[in-house]
Amino acid sequence: MSLPAENTRIVLAARPVGEPTPSDFRVESVPIPVPAEGELLLEILYLSLDPYMRGRMSEAESYADPIAVGDVMVGGTVGRVIESKDPGFVNGDVVLSFSGWQTHAVADAGHVRKLDPHAAPVQTSLGVLGMPGFTAYAGLLEIGRPEKGETVVVAAATGPVGSAVGQIAKIRGARAVGIAGGPDKVAHLRELGFDAAVDHRDPDFAAQLAAACPNGVDVYFENVGGKVWDTVLPLLNTYARVPVCGLIANYNLTSAPEGPDRAPALMSRILTKSLTVRGFIQSEFVKDQFVHFLADMSGWITDGRVRYREDVVDGLTNAPDAFIGLLKGQNFGKLLIKVAQ
Amino acid sequence: MSLPAENTRIVLAARPVGEPTPSDFRVESVPIPVPAEGELLLEILYLSLDPYMRGRMSEAESYADPIAVGDVMVGGTVGRVIESKDPGFVNGDVVLSFSGWQTHAVADAGHVRKLDPHAAPVQTSLGVLGMPGFTAYAGLLEIGRPEKGETVVVAAATGPVGSAVGQIAKIRGARAVGIAGGPDKVAHLRELGFDAAVDHRDPDFAAQLAAACPNGVDVYFENVGGKVWDTVLPLLNTYARVPVCGLIANYNLTSAPEGPDRAPALMSRILTKSLTVRGFIQSEFVKDQFVHFLADMSGWITDGRVRYREDVVDGLTNAPDAFIGLLKGQNFGKLLIKVAQ
Repeated sequence: MSLPAENTRIVLAARPVGEPTPSDFRVESVPIPVPAEGELLLEILYLSLDPYMRGRMSEAESYADPIAVGDVMVGGTVGRVIESKDPGFVNGDVVLSFSGWQTHAVADAGHVRKLDPHAAPVQTSLGVLGMPGFTAYAGLLEIGRPEKGETVVVAAATGPVGSAVGQIAKIRGARAVGIAGGPDKVAHLRELGFDAAVDHRDPDFAAQLAAACPNGVDVYFENVGGKVWDTVLPLLNTYARVPVCGLIANYNLTSAPEGPDRAPALMSRILTKSLTVRGFIQSEFVKDQFVHFLADMSGWITDGRVRYREDVVDGLTNAPDAFIGLLKGQNFGKLLIKVAQ
Repeated sequence: MSLPAENTRIVLAARPVGEPTPSDFRVESVPIPVPAEGELLLEILYLSLDPYMRGRMSEAESYADPIAVGDVMVGGTVGRVIESKDPGFVNGDVVLSFSGWQTHAVADAGHVRKLDPHAAPVQTSLGVLGMPGFTAYAGLLEIGRPEKGETVVVAAATGPVGSAVGQIAKIRGARAVGIAGGPDKVAHLRELGFDAAVDHRDPDFAAQLAAACPNGVDVYFENVGGKVWDTVLPLLNTYARVPVCGLIANYNLTSAPEGPDRAPALMSRILTKSLTVRGFIQSEFVKDQFVHFLADMSGWITDGRVRYREDVVDGLTNAPDAFIGLLKGQNFGKLLIKVAQ
């Protein structure tokens, strides 16, 4: 295979103020990097787009360092080995790596995971069998801990995290209530087996959600924040658990919203209802749980108990627009960029 | 023993708006109640005053029903049996009951706990060996779970909950940092063995607290809210635990404070630091933990590892003023009303 001449990559051009805009990104062409001993040159096949990337574009303190202006946007990727300098890999191997928004990358062979294209479509390692699926699995089972018959609510429920949360909740015998934006997404949740599905764009969303949770809410898997959180909070039962893995509604805030200050009321609610509100990043649970996750989730996919939906956008240079849309909930399923054929 | 002619009691005269005032309480004299079979007539010796009572005076939804206007103020009490209609008790027995703000009460024999005056001063059943001590024990050990060398911060630290939290943290090998109001209280914390003590009234409180926690904060035992919480929050380490048992600073709020709305920022902090914020009421843990608590705490008191301080006010009719002062932090140690000799 002859090597391509250039690596196309997308770098952070400027830190966004509020919602990212196309001008916050810049497409560059640079020479293809050269792998050293123990490294692999990868042709990227799929790039995963995920809400957490918004946090990395900002300078604010978070669980990971910000991307420097001028650096390649980060992201999980599936790539094909096109030059191996490591005895464990041959050309044509497909690997999971964290190579970011680019068409080619060099990766340390010790930092990639070889994928078996016969076991599952390789891009599922970025979705239902990857970080988003594991976020759902670990957060729901380690923090949410739904009991049989309890009510689990999740928003962004057609997304890769939310859809897994709802389906795993069902497997555990809980009642799953999904929140999504728009009638197509709501219909899809019903197809996935959610017990109820509510459209947060409906004017009577709060009343619909309350009606969908006649016994209150025992687990709210928080991945959106904002209006949905405000609506769920009064429905939480005593001893409810709230795993918090994302707050997409907050990511573009440039300052605290106008008052009144509802933080004291939030703390009071946590007190009077004996709530557990627990932030987490899936990486916390990888060591103990990832192997169980892969076994469980692979089985559930095989036997049809967990289904997943992908929203695939062709071409790396469409990543900025797709990402901007993701933050507005415009994707429908796991958002992937198909970088190469 | 001849029975007294009258029961003096203090009822809720009006629901407070903001800080309670003396006119929210009313002293009444009513006939001494008559015990039926299985009941005990008690002469109350000590009444416990605790911050939670403020919540019970309001109509807002909480973990317990509000006190009706005109009803006796609730509260834990130690009383002496002066007429027993139950074979398990004789006159002179001293019992723990929940008889409220009054000099005499009838209690169901099945709802009281007989105290051994030789084992510990009977009023400790309202403090270090009672609900406040157990709140500290269960919240710290079941939710806070401090590890050796971790930093535990607690406010209202000379109070019955806070002082137990700090001393149990020390027993578990953690570093204890106490927050209190005024130099006398801060000095007392040092006598109790806290590793550091900070006065929240000092203008440079935030800087002092940060200096007292050079490795950040792993457990913040939340019993006050307000400015202290605002100051601790930025110091919390990744994976910090925040048992929330009280929010005294919030109890007198009549509406949400002026903006900006800091609730989204609080949730973001919970997310990015993987915090656990967990409300609780001690009763949740009674069944599993109270017997262990009594054994552990009695031992710690006997061997001097846990010390306690009482703030005893004479006379039931002084209870309203003492309670109003409690909400302002004017007590110094466990606040008790000595109702009878």
